Amino acid sequence: MQTETLNSAVIIIGNEILSGKTQDLNIQFIAKELGNIGIRLKEVRVVPDIENDIVEAVNSLRKKYKYVFTTGGIGPTHDDITAKTIAKAFNDEYVVNESAKAIMEAHLMTIGEEMTREHLRMAYMPKSAIPLLNRETAAPGFKIENVFVMAGVPSVMQTIFHEVKKYLQHGKPIISKAVDIEISENLIAQQFSALQDKYPSIEMGSYPFKGDHGWATSLVLRGDDEDLIDKAMEELLEIIMQIK
Amino acid sequence: MQTETLNSAVIIIGNEILSGKTQDLNIQFIAKELGNIGIRLKEVRVVPDIENDIVEAVNSLRKKYKYVFTTGGIGPTHDDITAKTIAKAFNDEYVVNESAKAIMEAHLMTIGEEMTREHLRMAYMPKSAIPLLNRETAAPGFKIENVFVMAGVPSVMQTIFHEVKKYLQHGKPIISKAVDIEISENLIAQQFSALQDKYPSIEMGSYPFKGDHGWATSLVLRGDDEDLIDKAMEELLEIIMQIK
Repeated sequence: MQTETLNSAVIIIGNEILSGKTQDLNIQFIAKELGNIGIRLKEVRVVPDIENDIVEAVNSLRKKYKYVFTTGGIGPTHDDITAKTIAKAFNDEYVVNESAKAIMEAHLMTIGEEMTREHLRMAYMPKSAIPLLNRETAAPGFKIENVFVMAGVPSVMQTIFHEVKKYLQHGKPIISKAVDIEISENLIAQQFSALQDKYPSIEMGSYPFKGDHGWATSLVLRGDDEDLIDKAMEELLEIIMQIK
Repeated sequence: MQTETLNSAVIIIGNEILSGKTQDLNIQFIAKELGNIGIRLKEVRVVPDIENDIVEAVNSLRKKYKYVFTTGGIGPTHDDITAKTIAKAFNDEYVVNESAKAIMEAHLMTIGEEMTREHLRMAYMPKSAIPLLNRETAAPGFKIENVFVMAGVPSVMQTIFHEVKKYLQHGKPIISKAVDIEISENLIAQQFSALQDKYPSIEMGSYPFKGDHGWATSLVLRGDDEDLIDKAMEELLEIIMQIK
């Protein structure tokens, strides 16, 4: 199946997530964007700013999935080791990318600043990498084979992701339809399970949440065949009517 | 070093995170709680509700870290496969836990409900597991060896985590002190790197963010020796004064 091969993983690189300093917002953004273009996110890893940990995650996931997206660690400070580490994961040289350098120079000219060692550092990447434009702060992300390297700051990541999409094969959009009911999931579990058995190609999930009148449940149908989802949803609504 | 052995990983089990439907809030909560009791969170994986993926994550991480915490997939619906899957990961039987059943019965009595198949399902766990009290919705989490299994709904996870802490060895609290500066991190990168070299036992991070007057930077010092952090922070403040 084509959709099965259009899978992916995300690697969040950053001590700030593992320490709890920062609330991650990148997983959800990337997950939704990928779903819209028919790519399934199958796994996420959050790893610290430690070379071995990053190399291990990148090398195991890039063999397992069609695409790997990383966020974090491409800035100018000592804790930004992603670009160099990814060069190492690919056994590639870590060099100044001339296009990236030109982009940085052009940006600095418009804001009237001189190129410093720190600016130049952000033009370093693996030799075989292709820079990915960053319309927010200029310092580019990059693509190397099936790995896409982006910044960690959400607004910067998002502008780079816009460039990333140009390189991705698109599949049928993954559609998600949900119905919320003001009863505990216990009361619909059996019939919902039977519905899942009837439609095995639809991913069905039940998610409890606190509603206005106690515990409620969100029932989600997800897949790339909208007609089938609508058919299953009709049956689900009938089941709900009978319970109420 | 004792602090090095007090490490841990989190496994978020849930299609709802990988689809982007739900914004994860559990990583940050657990990360902060662990830091307060001196346990370092070294890795997070988000995996789908698929048996093989869960078994692989649990079995690789429980050997690598002192503690593993999972969230999600312990409810009564067909997509809740965590308890059964963890029994499989440990080659353990999947049985009704009599304490868990008694807890469920007592809870149902207070709310005047009968025990159904769905309620009973939430009393199933690996044979060698110990239930973890859930003061929010009664259905317990459980502990098996060094793996702690919790619900995915944040408020429920948090009450179970309160029980989890009773089983954890506590280390020296990990302290984090930060200073925000209204300049780009480029301008302090060299001196901040030199400071990191001077204090290798302190984890130093630089995090750009959008301030009121353009890009700003949060500089973070983190470790378990507060006196040393204060000393390094004094030096950092001197560096900042000289730049401004």
